Amino acid sequence: MHQHLDDLFALLRIPSVSTDPARRDDLRRCAAWLAAKFTALGLTAEVHQTPGHPIVSARNRRVAGRRTVLIYGHYDVQPADPLALWRGDPFVPTLSDSGVITARGATDNKGQILAHILGAGETIAADGDLPLNVIFLVEGEEEIGSPHLAEFLRRQRAELACDVVAVSDTGMIEPGRGTLTYGLRGIACLEVAVSGPDKDLHSGIFGGAVANPLTALARLLATLHDADGRVAIRGFYDGVAPLAQWERAAWAALPVTDAELLRLAGASALAPEPGYRGVECAWGRPTAELNGLYGGYQGEGSKTVIPADAHAKLSFRLVPGQEPEKILSLAAAHLRNHCPPGVTLTVTPGHAGAAYLLDPATPCAQAARRALALAFPGKEPALVREGGSIPIVSDFKKILGADTLLLGLALPDARIHSPNETFTVENFEAGIRLNQILLHELAR
Amino acid sequence: MHQHLDDLFALLRIPSVSTDPARRDDLRRCAAWLAAKFTALGLTAEVHQTPGHPIVSARNRRVAGRRTVLIYGHYDVQPADPLALWRGDPFVPTLSDSGVITARGATDNKGQILAHILGAGETIAADGDLPLNVIFLVEGEEEIGSPHLAEFLRRQRAELACDVVAVSDTGMIEPGRGTLTYGLRGIACLEVAVSGPDKDLHSGIFGGAVANPLTALARLLATLHDADGRVAIRGFYDGVAPLAQWERAAWAALPVTDAELLRLAGASALAPEPGYRGVECAWGRPTAELNGLYGGYQGEGSKTVIPADAHAKLSFRLVPGQEPEKILSLAAAHLRNHCPPGVTLTVTPGHAGAAYLLDPATPCAQAARRALALAFPGKEPALVREGGSIPIVSDFKKILGADTLLLGLALPDARIHSPNETFTVENFEAGIRLNQILLHELAR
Repeated sequence: MHQHLDDLFALLRIPSVSTDPARRDDLRRCAAWLAAKFTALGLTAEVHQTPGHPIVSARNRRVAGRRTVLIYGHYDVQPADPLALWRGDPFVPTLSDSGVITARGATDNKGQILAHILGAGETIAADGDLPLNVIFLVEGEEEIGSPHLAEFLRRQRAELACDVVAVSDTGMIEPGRGTLTYGLRGIACLEVAVSGPDKDLHSGIFGGAVANPLTALARLLATLHDADGRVAIRGFYDGVAPLAQWERAAWAALPVTDAELLRLAGASALAPEPGYRGVECAWGRPTAELNGLYGGYQGEGSKTVIPADAHAKLSFRLVPGQEPEKILSLAAAHLRNHCPPGVTLTVTPGHAGAAYLLDPATPCAQAARRALALAFPGKEPALVREGGSIPIVSDFKKILGADTLLLGLALPDARIHSPNETFTVENFEAGIRLNQILLHELAR
Repeated sequence: MHQHLDDLFALLRIPSVSTDPARRDDLRRCAAWLAAKFTALGLTAEVHQTPGHPIVSARNRRVAGRRTVLIYGHYDVQPADPLALWRGDPFVPTLSDSGVITARGATDNKGQILAHILGAGETIAADGDLPLNVIFLVEGEEEIGSPHLAEFLRRQRAELACDVVAVSDTGMIEPGRGTLTYGLRGIACLEVAVSGPDKDLHSGIFGGAVANPLTALARLLATLHDADGRVAIRGFYDGVAPLAQWERAAWAALPVTDAELLRLAGASALAPEPGYRGVECAWGRPTAELNGLYGGYQGEGSKTVIPADAHAKLSFRLVPGQEPEKILSLAAAHLRNHCPPGVTLTVTPGHAGAAYLLDPATPCAQAARRALALAFPGKEPALVREGGSIPIVSDFKKILGADTLLLGLALPDARIHSPNETFTVENFEAGIRLNQILLHELAR
């Protein structure tokens, strides 16, 4: 374990902040470090240049007839800002007496991907090879939206062909409890602009005679939901897969109660869809959300203006059964049908991605659940969905045709993306163990 | 007339921009110039210091038993910016062959108030005195909201006691046509804040489980109007004075058609209250307007956030019969009653002022109409209201108990507040004539 921690600390010392152009060489250095590590462990590694930061791949020898698993991770990290809130240098990792490692990237994602790499190394050291074909794929641009990964997957589709993908980049429901994330929501974004007069008008001179774009926008957006808060776009719920009885029951036993969600949100009350608990809405029900709203005067005091235009940014969280492009077109039609008179509406679709759902009863998922149970003994693995979207998971499905096992090692208090990010030695060890067990379970 | 134009040009050459601290001495110089001019014409002048720019007053001898008229104007001007759009120096007035004077302040308000001053001077030169008691009140802070005028009126209430106020600082409906503005709308402002979670939340993690303050705000604001665009606040229209049949007929004959309003607004269509023409809504019907709306993400692309709060700026244009404070309290009650669950509402009232209406059949208004007919011969004076608010008119009523005659000399194309502001020699002469006739008519 001492050597493993040395490796992790060496990796954490490289400030591979992908969004910072000044760190470009650090990202190269990080990719080279990984390639050298893979090689040292007995894998064949390659560094692939992209228009951005390099992608590192590594594999054991390919044996025909064996299953292939692709293990994905990323070596880039979020910026460390605000630096003043860190207790030490974010790129000088520390280890506390209680076994807590603090550094930028400790959990997200260096600690988690390195656990898989070192786990594979241990298996090779013990057995001479891994029990199935393994491809590691570690990119350097996850924190900036993986702009070159899909293109790489398409170009290398044959080389990357696999039966299943494994990723440790999600959360654990609680310490010591293995957690399989078997579903993600999709997303569809659009922007709405309402324009009226060709310039801002004096509300004294024109008010009452012309339509106010701000009022029109508020009225239009208010039609997106019915009185109960359900989305009122015709056809929005068509095909939505209902929550299964087993998952509603399973989630009810998890420590994600309405009270806990409320505490995390810091709101005065939850406002779930009627008939659903908060976590059911967040993980398994679709939404229409306003993410931004602006127009007219925003400064101190008042300015009595009827502005020329008003704007809103919308996004829809989608669940299995909903097609992003169809939702965007239903939404655009709804907005056009409900736009008040006297103004002009412009709807601009943005990025979109489908929801993801893996049946936890499939053999792959069963293997993952067994591995989680063995790596985190004493507690039945939790089966969860997440409400966010992880676009690479859709890409793996679309381009490689492979399902993804999301086996997160991030603790609820790991402070990923925040100052003083941590990873525990306990989870690092568990991750190394998890990789070894998972590969054996998937090979069965 | 040559001497009168020399006087106007001298006044226009002083760059009395009240909002610019660097022009402080120019405002003093302007006040001194006016006091000297009043004195030269045979009036008793006084320059009153205020915490801001000075107020100039002047009067003829007070004769008991005569009516008293207070003539108000302002010697400060708007900034000349953007300078690049002026054809010449804004403070070097020019006179075109067709009789158009171009300079900042030409119409607003130096040309108009000087016409009254010079008109009074001509009467004194001819008759030895004015036909009634006259008080001139010319302030230097109108363009910055007259912050010290109300206090001055209160302090000098006895000295400023008058039967009626006359102001030339409004518009003419068309060239050559005397225009009496007998009504103004009032105003009441308030700000609305809706807050939800105690920080911005990830819409993937929490979306669907918590109320979105932007959605709540849009839904709340959409309740302000009914399907026809009428204000839906209970009691809002209580006591509203209906438009008189005579004024609807009079306005219909004015060149403020719906087509003309639409052209000025540059919108795709007017959206008047059902049953009213555009000008009737703008001059004589109350409104609820959104002047600003903001919250969440406003940058490029998308950011999938549920923001902690959302904000709106509202203002109500009021008509006779509506009490600003009562409207603010009805609006606050409406907002509280219609606020969706899961968020916290804060309503902050802002400034408010009542509508103003002068019956054009009163003796004073009749005198003004006769004076306008004589000063602008050949066309029946137009009787108009304006949709904006002029707070000093309320102050004159509240503090001095006097009605105000608004006898504007500003032409529709005078470009007040804009580059290349103009005033015509024709209107300057008409204004001088108007003052002489008005004082005689008010003395009858």
